[in-house]
Amino acid sequence: MKTTSKNSSWREKLHEVIYEADTPSGKAFDVVLLIIIFLSIIFVMLESVKGLDPWIYEYMYVAEWIITILFSLEYIARVICIQKPTRYIFSFYGLIDFFSTIPLYVSFLLPGSGSALITVRALRLLRVFRILKVSRYIGEGDRLMQALKDSRAKISVFLFAVLILCLIFGTAMYMIEGAESGFTNIPVSLYWCIVTLTTVGFGDIHPITPLGQFLASVIMILGYGVIAVPTGIVSAEYSKGEKNNEKSSSNNTQSCYHCHESKHLDGAEYCHNCGYPLNREK
Amino acid sequence: MKTTSKNSSWREKLHEVIYEADTPSGKAFDVVLLIIIFLSIIFVMLESVKGLDPWIYEYMYVAEWIITILFSLEYIARVICIQKPTRYIFSFYGLIDFFSTIPLYVSFLLPGSGSALITVRALRLLRVFRILKVSRYIGEGDRLMQALKDSRAKISVFLFAVLILCLIFGTAMYMIEGAESGFTNIPVSLYWCIVTLTTVGFGDIHPITPLGQFLASVIMILGYGVIAVPTGIVSAEYSKGEKNNEKSSSNNTQSCYHCHESKHLDGAEYCHNCGYPLNREK
Amino acid sequence: MKTTSKNSSWREKLHEVIYEADTPSGKAFDVVLLIIIFLSIIFVMLESVKGLDPWIYEYMYVAEWIITILFSLEYIARVICIQKPTRYIFSFYGLIDFFSTIPLYVSFLLPGSGSALITVRALRLLRVFRILKVSRYIGEGDRLMQALKDSRAKISVFLFAVLILCLIFGTAMYMIEGAESGFTNIPVSLYWCIVTLTTVGFGDIHPITPLGQFLASVIMILGYGVIAVPTGIVSAEYSKGEKNNEKSSSNNTQSCYHCHESKHLDGAEYCHNCGYPLNREK
Amino acid sequence: MKTTSKNSSWREKLHEVIYEADTPSGKAFDVVLLIIIFLSIIFVMLESVKGLDPWIYEYMYVAEWIITILFSLEYIARVICIQKPTRYIFSFYGLIDFFSTIPLYVSFLLPGSGSALITVRALRLLRVFRILKVSRYIGEGDRLMQALKDSRAKISVFLFAVLILCLIFGTAMYMIEGAESGFTNIPVSLYWCIVTLTTVGFGDIHPITPLGQFLASVIMILGYGVIAVPTGIVSAEYSKGEKNNEKSSSNNTQSCYHCHESKHLDGAEYCHNCGYPLNREK
Repeated sequence: MKTTSKNSSWREKLHEVIYEADTPSGKAFDVVLLIIIFLSIIFVMLESVKGLDPWIYEYMYVAEWIITILFSLEYIARVICIQKPTRYIFSFYGLIDFFSTIPLYVSFLLPGSGSALITVRALRLLRVFRILKVSRYIGEGDRLMQALKDSRAKISVFLFAVLILCLIFGTAMYMIEGAESGFTNIPVSLYWCIVTLTTVGFGDIHPITPLGQFLASVIMILGYGVIAVPTGIVSAEYSKGEKNNEKSSSNNTQSCYHCHESKHLDGAEYCHNCGYPLNREK
Repeated sequence: MKTTSKNSSWREKLHEVIYEADTPSGKAFDVVLLIIIFLSIIFVMLESVKGLDPWIYEYMYVAEWIITILFSLEYIARVICIQKPTRYIFSFYGLIDFFSTIPLYVSFLLPGSGSALITVRALRLLRVFRILKVSRYIGEGDRLMQALKDSRAKISVFLFAVLILCLIFGTAMYMIEGAESGFTNIPVSLYWCIVTLTTVGFGDIHPITPLGQFLASVIMILGYGVIAVPTGIVSAEYSKGEKNNEKSSSNNTQSCYHCHESKHLDGAEYCHNCGYPLNREK
Repeated sequence: MKTTSKNSSWREKLHEVIYEADTPSGKAFDVVLLIIIFLSIIFVMLESVKGLDPWIYEYMYVAEWIITILFSLEYIARVICIQKPTRYIFSFYGLIDFFSTIPLYVSFLLPGSGSALITVRALRLLRVFRILKVSRYIGEGDRLMQALKDSRAKISVFLFAVLILCLIFGTAMYMIEGAESGFTNIPVSLYWCIVTLTTVGFGDIHPITPLGQFLASVIMILGYGVIAVPTGIVSAEYSKGEKNNEKSSSNNTQSCYHCHESKHLDGAEYCHNCGYPLNREK
Repeated sequence: MKTTSKNSSWREKLHEVIYEADTPSGKAFDVVLLIIIFLSIIFVMLESVKGLDPWIYEYMYVAEWIITILFSLEYIARVICIQKPTRYIFSFYGLIDFFSTIPLYVSFLLPGSGSALITVRALRLLRVFRILKVSRYIGEGDRLMQALKDSRAKISVFLFAVLILCLIFGTAMYMIEGAESGFTNIPVSLYWCIVTLTTVGFGDIHPITPLGQFLASVIMILGYGVIAVPTGIVSAEYSKGEKNNEKSSSNNTQSCYHCHESKHLDGAEYCHNCGYPLNREK
């Protein structure tokens, strides 16, 4: 680890700044990177909007080049400062970083390919997951993740049951309503059933026959009772987590020298079991 | 049980594989069955889609025959290996298995009946409930079911109250809005009311008069407060279940030397069963 | 109470049957009444449906007369058997019972008034609230009501805050979107805002300007976070109620004769504090 | 504080009435103010409705003048009675009070500006936040606010994660569906994604390609599982608050004879503060 060559120490320092977020400079790097990522996302979003003033597109084209160059520099820095560059290059983020940087270069070299590559640039969006790595330092993210992870198995079983329900009701609706109401085939009917059971209800497809409306009512009432389940799970999981936190942190750790009773109120000065003072100095 | 005839032992073994899921071969059988059921469901779903390439329908026709034959073999095996075949044949799953297997044979014998029998094949979907029997081994399904079962009575009362609310508001909306806005009759109005109260909101029918919109607002605000109830129920039920689990496991592990009673209050000094001191040192 | 006159005792008996539900005959009366009320509701609902076979309307007309006569008999019985008939006649249920019974008589006397009186018959729906009086005996209704009643104050404050939010956002949307998108005036805009915040989302009115869509997104995200509040309230209230129930009922009330320790496990036979038998007979 | 000059005491009294709500007259002032604010809001709402009888607009014009004069008097009183008028005038509420009062005066002086100033009058709506200051006295508002404030950090992290999800899914839907289905650009697609994930589902934009419908199903199922999170958070936070309330009150009521310390663990035999036995009999 302590390779004393000058070059290596310079790389180590860069590595600390780019890959870690514990030092002030590392944190600053992450924040600046996030701002650039967000700007690049806003530009990708704006570019998809038609009918703006032409000068906006020109400005965005310049901004795109600046961001592309910044991303290129970052990519090169990431490759240089790591011990085993191939591990980064072929990692998930490495590939995203690469493919979200090159489109502009390619469109410069092959003028006709611009419109096809614009979609590749959308990959840049996946970089925002980096944000979560930073937001972890805000403190709450972890606990939220934990509650979700703990109830993952339960939610999976639940979602599986919901899907089977949708499958059955979707097929039933297809057979009842038919193509006239928009239930043209079972997959579409299944899609409608998910739309309904999750209480989204677009209304692009909806039952028109009395029997179909009756079955739809049953599905909705069911969805009403069923939406309670994941909430109940996460809620119980979450308040369990809270309780554990509370339990482990709020009890003081004093132990009586005389009777070894270890559970005392905060601020207790005498053992409640034998009356012996808890702090010897007294 | 210990019928030592060779035939019977062979049947017993088959019974274990088909009807139980404790042994490795029984588990494997269930998993293979599930995959076939899922494939058959996907084929039923795809078949309802119009406008695909003709060769896909041809392939699916072949696949249908293979699945039908596999299902037939399974059905025969199920009938053979059970002690009282009639109990299986006339059971819920027995009838489903039968009616989801024969359509293709019937359509082969009576060429014109194909399109009518396709709907019968959708019965196959009900076989997926078998999956739940397997998913039980994942471990969480049971507890989820328990929480739902425990709160069944409460949810029923709740749903009943919701239905009465819908009945009253539905009739009121019918009288306020009338046929022009789509509230053509009370059942339709009731259907709209369920759509609204469950926060699905298709939008196929919606109030247009100011008074109707006001009443709809009241219904929605009500639904907002009311959706909390089932969630609260399941949540409370679920966290109660968690607590019970915790309680039975977190109790102290002292065991009486005298009567081997193992459930004692924390801090108990004498066995509550025989009066013998719990700690020998005393 | 013990008026020994024959007439009075007959009235007392009838009173018990009609107004109370503790005796078997009282319960039976309530159940029969409920079935008739439900049938009458179904007839009112069906009558609003146009385009059925003519004989159905004829059958329903006869059924209507039978139900009207039964309701009349019930009304007369209720008036006769009570001590102070005026108290019943001018009570909420008394008026509903009266007005839901007479329409058919009036339409018989004044042939032209039939269609106007049909709406009055819908009052019959309000009689279903009687059902709740019976469903109370199912056992869960009370506790549900209690949880709702306990959290009434909180839910009111919450709904009030939601309404203010809707008022502000509704006005903002009216000023942003204007009449073109359907936000024709502030009340309509307020209605849209409630539709959106409660996640119903009919889609009859929806923003079309970018700014309007942005504000709508904010409202929806807000509604997402805000829907959690009533659920949290009822859930906490409900699990508090459960805990109280548990606490008061699940602990046994044995108390040691020797050391007066009163907290014992269910089934404990010796005091865990002093080892003295809990049941003296032993 | 005790400036004995007559003028100051008169101003102090007015200050108490206008700015505080502890005294009966202060409370009465707040209630009257709220009624006037509500009336003025109703008038602003009604004025936006087209097509009413002309005399209603005339009446409202008169009512507007009365309310404007009352608001002017209130504004003058608020400025006079406070020690440092500039602090009120340039405060948030001071500016709202000012700008919600003057439009009518300006439209009187400059006849053509009426329609432009009507929107400024909508600022009056913001005055309703004063209501929350009063509703605090109802008692529950505070606790509700506390639960929301405590879970603010968690809900922020959660909403942030939801927004990133929407960003990714929105872009994906834009690339899959394209302009034909209404997904004309990424911001619109993001708006649709929020509409869907929050289960609002207007239906103004909806997927029509099979792949788009499949992805939409995934988003909805995800939203189904994800809606549980904020509910779980608030629910846990709220029941924690309830428990703390309970805990501080449910602790045992023993009080030490020696040092009068009153908070002891259940089962404590000696005062944890001074070591004195808690039960004299011992």
